Order: sequence, then structure tokens, then C-alpha cells
Amino acid sequence: MGEVNEVPLIAVDWGTSSLRGARLDEAGRVLEEKSAPLGILNVPHGDFAGVFDSLFADWMKPAGSVCLISGMAGSRQGWVEAPYAACPAGPEELKRYLHWIEPGRIALVPGLSVEQGEVPDVMRGEEVQIFGTMRLAGLTDGLFVLPGTHSKWATVRDGRVTGFRTCMTGEFYGLLSQHSILARTLQADAPLDEAMFLRGLARAGEGEGLLHTAFGVRALALFDRLSLAESASYLSGLLIGEELRSQELPAGREVILIGAPALTARYALALGAKGARVRSFGAEATWAGLRALRG
Amino acid sequence: MGEVNEVPLIAVDWGTSSLRGARLDEAGRVLEEKSAPLGILNVPHGDFAGVFDSLFADWMKPAGSVCLISGMAGSRQGWVEAPYAACPAGPEELKRYLHWIEPGRIALVPGLSVEQGEVPDVMRGEEVQIFGTMRLAGLTDGLFVLPGTHSKWATVRDGRVTGFRTCMTGEFYGLLSQHSILARTLQADAPLDEAMFLRGLARAGEGEGLLHTAFGVRALALFDRLSLAESASYLSGLLIGEELRSQELPAGREVILIGAPALTARYALALGAKGARVRSFGAEATWAGLRALRG
Repeated sequence: MGEVNEVPLIAVDWGTSSLRGARLDEAGRVLEEKSAPLGILNVPHGDFAGVFDSLFADWMKPAGSVCLISGMAGSRQGWVEAPYAACPAGPEELKRYLHWIEPGRIALVPGLSVEQGEVPDVMRGEEVQIFGTMRLAGLTDGLFVLPGTHSKWATVRDGRVTGFRTCMTGEFYGLLSQHSILARTLQADAPLDEAMFLRGLARAGEGEGLLHTAFGVRALALFDRLSLAESASYLSGLLIGEELRSQELPAGREVILIGAPALTARYALALGAKGARVRSFGAEATWAGLRALRG
Repeated sequence: MGEVNEVPLIAVDWGTSSLRGARLDEAGRVLEEKSAPLGILNVPHGDFAGVFDSLFADWMKPAGSVCLISGMAGSRQGWVEAPYAACPAGPEELKRYLHWIEPGRIALVPGLSVEQGEVPDVMRGEEVQIFGTMRLAGLTDGLFVLPGTHSKWATVRDGRVTGFRTCMTGEFYGLLSQHSILARTLQADAPLDEAMFLRGLARAGEGEGLLHTAFGVRALALFDRLSLAESASYLSGLLIGEELRSQELPAGREVILIGAPALTARYALALGAKGARVRSFGAEATWAGLRALRG
């Protein structure tokens, strides 16, 4: 559980489907990056140590090298389970709960958990992006939104995540556009059609509920009122609109978006339509976040 | 387009995944039934006429035999497309829009369409079950609910369907329980756990939205607070609860349920919890409905 102040830092983001790492200098600058399609579900024979060594052994050679790993590598299906740290939690709490695989050398960053009524919620990896963005943007408070397969809406107060909610928006998009009856009349990877996206967004705002509005994509296609490409943007608008509908969002509120530009652009559009002010950051915040855990 | 008053009537319900038929006597009694796993998506080489003959040629031999076919066989992917009849529509309108494959001998029953704002809705097959149930129950008005892959909520006034809404509840259950991250910790075919179902129902009623509450199934399982079997009933409650949440349902309102007993039982439980009165009918209403179209 010792302090982690030596150079260099090897920062690793080990997710479900991919793995990427960076070698950082004392100032947190990226010296070198690597990535591989070896997410936790694709590790041969579950040999996490072997994959780690094959990619990072050379980076770990200098005496005192430390590696911090965030993401699903710390889940039950990952390398070793690193139990969630309970909210409210900031970098200090996470540091205390680092799960060392090799003491003082390789650690897994725990995810966060929160209790809301009878139902818990969890994140694993996004907390590091939040802390990294706070550092990059000089923020200690705010509403942070990380769109994705499982979008996270996190509230930060005085440098600590006090609560958050997950929405399965990205996963629902994949399920509906690839595996449902909508798949027949929808081009899932079509580029964004902004007008259709906003139309879906407005439709979601009417409050009829996703179970009903999603079928509208099918019905509109049956009557040739939506093309294959338009259906994709309309469905995306329905889903993101549904996600926003269940969030408290005071007018004029600033929202910090973190994620890939193609995705944060859609959320910026949707949040803008609701009167929110938006600032967007890339997922590169991960390196800054892991560095923040170092000391 | 002629009248269809001769005996016998061959009634066929040709759906997406299966096909069933019945030979009825003058009084509408079932003399014989047949079924096959030859839904419209499983018709070899698209030879609908061949499948029809192989199953029903002997039934069709008597002079004056008439066959009415409801369901997806009249869809664009079916035998021939039978364009939707627009609501409001009752048996008289459907009779006028029968789509004859062999004049006076074999007809496809059109489905219904309705316009709600900018978005249409459609049904194909359920309209026949509604008209059959009206006949069996002696009803000319009411709220009819047909749970299933795509649940239908239809309002009937003076013997005609005036409007309806589709909810993709059953399809969402299949997608989430089989293809999503929830599948890992959920036994999709577990028998109903009533307490867990009601817990899911109550959770949906809190209005947090399905995109968020569905992730709760995963989080509860991660903390060992839901077993594989319990997760299935809880998710079912979340989905049916979400479906009910988007419906206007005055207290004490009577709801007519039509469908398989295992499914109508869940809806009866959910609607009962909302203070609605419920009467349930089986899908056998199809034969009565096709007979009602005959004259």
C-alpha cells in the first residue's frame, strides 16, 4: 500500500475489448503509447500476466517502475478482482484502495460503487477519466457525462465523485440496430444525419417511452418515411433523448463531456438542445487520471 | 371482393415463426387443427403456395371452401403484401380490404395502421384476435391488451379499433436476456418469481427510465443481491412496468387481455397492482375473429 512517487509511470487502460498503455515522464507527458486488441475477454487462456509482460516488460525494466491499470482488468472477469471503492470517493480514496498485484510495482485501480435506494451502481475505468479531466480542466465540481456502451453521469463535489448513474444507451443502440426487428431497415454505421437525430430527440421528449418509440422506427420504415441511414440517426436520437429525459438538468447547467469526439458531438447537440452548456474532453484524460493517483 | 358465406371455413394464422390452421363448421366449431414451424421466415424458397397446399389442400377440396389467412403472411416479407386498413376499422372494414390470392377462395386479412402525430403504428394478426374476443365476450367497447414480442394496446369503440400503440416489450426482454451484458447473470427461461417481478415493477414505477434501471439488474447481480432466476423475473417486471408507465390507465378501468396464459398472467398481476380490472382470453380468439370476417 506504499506511496508511488518514483519515475517512470506506466499507465494502462485495460478494457473489455482492448488494451492500451502509455509510458509517462515525470511531468506526465506521454513518451510512448501501445495498444492491442487484447481486452479482458480476449486474453488467451486467461494469462493476464503473460499478456502484460509481452506488451510492457521492456517499459517496466527501469528500477522503481510503477504501473497503474484502470478498467475492466480489475473486474471479476479480469486479472484479479479489485473491489469497488464506495462513493463519495476522489483520488485519495482510490489510492488507498489500489489493489497491488506486485507490491509497489503493478496495481489495479478499483472502480467506484454507489448505493441509490435499493439498487447499487458501478463504474470501472470512467472514474480515472473523470479525475484526469478534473486535473486537465482545473475543476473540482461539476456534472461529468461519459457516453458509451454504458454511459455514466457523475456528480463531482470538492474533488470527489458523490454519486452517479449508468445508462445502457450504447448497448441498447447495438442491440436494437443489430439484433432486433429494426435491423432489417437500418444501417447501423451510417454517418450522423443531424436533422433526423434531432427529430428522434424531440420524439423521445414527448415521453411516450422507449418501448413504444423504438417501434416507430420500424413503422416509419414500413411506410418509406425513413431511409436506412436516416433510421440510424433517428434511433440514436430516440435513445440519447431517452437518456436525457431521465436526468435532472437545470437550464444553463454546465456539463463536462468525456469520450470519443464522434460520440461527444452527439451528446453536445442533444444537451445544447436542452439549454445546457457543454465542454468536451477526449478519453486521453485516462493518462492524466492515472498520474493523479500516483501522488 | 365477393361475399364469403359458404361452408366450410379454413382459418389460418400465419405468423413470423409458425403457422397454424383450423377447419371450422358452420357454427364456428373447430373440427380439426394443424400447425407447423413454417412461419413466413421459414418458408422454403419463398414457396408460400407450396406450403399452403401441402398443409391445407385436402381441407380445401369441398366445393365452396374458403380460407382466410391472418398474420404476417400478408406482410411485405410474406406471401403477398396486403396493405394495412386504416383505423378506425372493424370487421366490416377488414372484409372490404381482404386481399384475395384466389378470388372467392383464399384471402389475406390486412393488418391495421394508425397515425399518431408524425409516427404511424401497425398491427398484423392481432386485429383478428381482438374481433374474435369481442365476439366471444359480447363486447363492443374496451381497452384490449395483447402482450407478446410486440405488445399491442388497442382501444375499441362501437365495434371498431379507433387507435392502438405497440410496445416492443417481449423483444426487449429477448434482447436483454440473451444478447446484452445482463445475459451473463440471468436465466432467461426461469419460472416466474412473483416477489421479484413485483419488485421490478415497483422499480420501473419510480420513473428512472429503462436505460438506467436495466443496468441495475447487472449491478444487483454483481453484489449477489439477485440470483440468476430472480434476475429474470426482476427484468420482466422492469419491462412490463415500463410498458404500463407509458399508458393512460384510469383506476378501476377494465382491461381485456388476450394471449398465452403464462404471459397474460404476468400482465394481470401488473395491471392488478395498478388497480385495473382484468379479463383474460386465449389466443384461440383467432378462429372466432376469422369467422367474424366471413359474414
